[in-house]
Amino acid sequence: MGFVRTIDWQDHHIVAIDQTRLPNEVVLLDIFTVEDLVAAIQRLAIRGAPALGVAGALGAAMAVKDEPFYRDRDLEALRTARPTAVNLAWGVDHVLAKLPNGEDAVLTAAIDLLESDAARNRALGERGADFLSQHVSGPLAIQTHCNAGALACVEWGTALGVVRSLHERANLRHVYVDETRPLLQGARLTTWELKAMGVDHTLVVDSAGPSVLARGLADAVVVGADRITANGDVVNKIGTYPLALAAARAGVPFLVAAPESTVDRALRCGADVEIEVRDGKEILGGLPEMSTLNLAFDVTPADLVTAIVTEDRIVRPARGERPA
Amino acid sequence: MGFVRTIDWQDHHIVAIDQTRLPNEVVLLDIFTVEDLVAAIQRLAIRGAPALGVAGALGAAMAVKDEPFYRDRDLEALRTARPTAVNLAWGVDHVLAKLPNGEDAVLTAAIDLLESDAARNRALGERGADFLSQHVSGPLAIQTHCNAGALACVEWGTALGVVRSLHERANLRHVYVDETRPLLQGARLTTWELKAMGVDHTLVVDSAGPSVLARGLADAVVVGADRITANGDVVNKIGTYPLALAAARAGVPFLVAAPESTVDRALRCGADVEIEVRDGKEILGGLPEMSTLNLAFDVTPADLVTAIVTEDRIVRPARGERPA
Repeated sequence: MGFVRTIDWQDHHIVAIDQTRLPNEVVLLDIFTVEDLVAAIQRLAIRGAPALGVAGALGAAMAVKDEPFYRDRDLEALRTARPTAVNLAWGVDHVLAKLPNGEDAVLTAAIDLLESDAARNRALGERGADFLSQHVSGPLAIQTHCNAGALACVEWGTALGVVRSLHERANLRHVYVDETRPLLQGARLTTWELKAMGVDHTLVVDSAGPSVLARGLADAVVVGADRITANGDVVNKIGTYPLALAAARAGVPFLVAAPESTVDRALRCGADVEIEVRDGKEILGGLPEMSTLNLAFDVTPADLVTAIVTEDRIVRPARGERPA
Repeated sequence: MGFVRTIDWQDHHIVAIDQTRLPNEVVLLDIFTVEDLVAAIQRLAIRGAPALGVAGALGAAMAVKDEPFYRDRDLEALRTARPTAVNLAWGVDHVLAKLPNGEDAVLTAAIDLLESDAARNRALGERGADFLSQHVSGPLAIQTHCNAGALACVEWGTALGVVRSLHERANLRHVYVDETRPLLQGARLTTWELKAMGVDHTLVVDSAGPSVLARGLADAVVVGADRITANGDVVNKIGTYPLALAAARAGVPFLVAAPESTVDRALRCGADVEIEVRDGKEILGGLPEMSTLNLAFDVTPADLVTAIVTEDRIVRPARGERPA
């Protein structure tokens, strides 16, 4: 990312990379209203669980400056802009708790969240790299899905934060990237980040990911998460579950890298999570109109999750450990 | 398909539907030379294991009319046009065995193969429908992958032949279709056939197939095969293996519908099959040039295959039965 953060606060407004335009163009969005922020989130111009947490926090700081009627409407629109990622509502509520201290305290808390994102991700990246280095002899080939990189955060990344840490240690050999239909976050965003890092990588169609593992080409799967329930079930981009099934069959670790804010202590298990169903047009492209089921996320059961790594700890659901 | 066969012999040449143009246009190819036939096979204008068997047979009948030098070159080009599907070389060799009886005997054998395709598929479709009706209470929701329909054969279909038989018996409720990246045979071809049949269907991205099963939306998976090895491993379109993993986890039958000619008695197991790796351009579309691994097929291990149904029998690899 160099000098451009995925999402930032500059001159009293949000500046964010429009992720729908990558990799062909780097376009910055200037966002001055909650309405525009919600629209950017819904069209996935701003995306990725940690970045959504920061967006929720900065959006809340914008909202509290309004009259109560508009404030409440805007906060509700922000919280529910996308239903599955817990971080969005978490970011809103995290900073709203400071409102008794005044509007400026909300903004200060939001900027704290923004500024501390890179440090949190670096901590979890290092912990994840430690874990993999202890369990698999390197240099490692990693398989990942979707984009849990700097573009999903403010800087550094979660799953790609682990990859980045392995790369810094010269303990990384290759990354296999699933294209991640229908919106191609893997093909467009993850490969763009890996190229910038100077990491060797190979793109495969999503349905080939399990074969990459069956053929012994990857030593571990590392993915992010949009919500982790109390029992250790992991909700992440559609296509994560088949990789977990294939990793278990191949006997390679399945590692989930996510900040603590992704853990939803209020929900017992993955079946309790509302899974976003998006417009079929994302799948159809130029094909004739027809019925679709465009699930944006899937649920990986805890018994398939070797480890969850956060900025604070490692939890091993497959061994019966619970994150909450 | 009504009056148009997927592949046919008319006025001394091959007539075939160009499957790269579906669903937007139905374009017929007139093929007069083995060279043009091989090109049509390589660009997947003609595809599908049973159709490739017939194409190999008709192509051999064309080749034997040439001088020995050209004949041998053409037969070799035909046999190796695509490496993974066994049916192509099988079709060539099946009819060449008649060459001692003259060139016309080769053509007669090829036309016999063409004419008997529908009957073979109808037999396996009925047997597959019987099997599912006995094991799952209907009306059934089926998940399929790629296209193993009439378009993969001359008429009727293999996996979609089972679907067609269930539909005739009013024991079919719905079909979930994986889009089948990168060439979208599911999204383009299978949905086109199901619409023509009047069968309710829903399109999902490939990586959502396992979630369709995990959510209990489908009662069985039914797919075709490009090669089945002696131990019951199944080589089929990339993306079949994750469905088999998910079907096993969900406890629903995973059924493979394929003619006997798909069984390769010479190969011990899936690891012995050469898997075609195709050009990365098929994946990349408008994205920047980068390294890809475009595996056209994957291997589903025998222990995940509930049943293989052919025109002659049912084999249950997951119970330890071997097709050869």
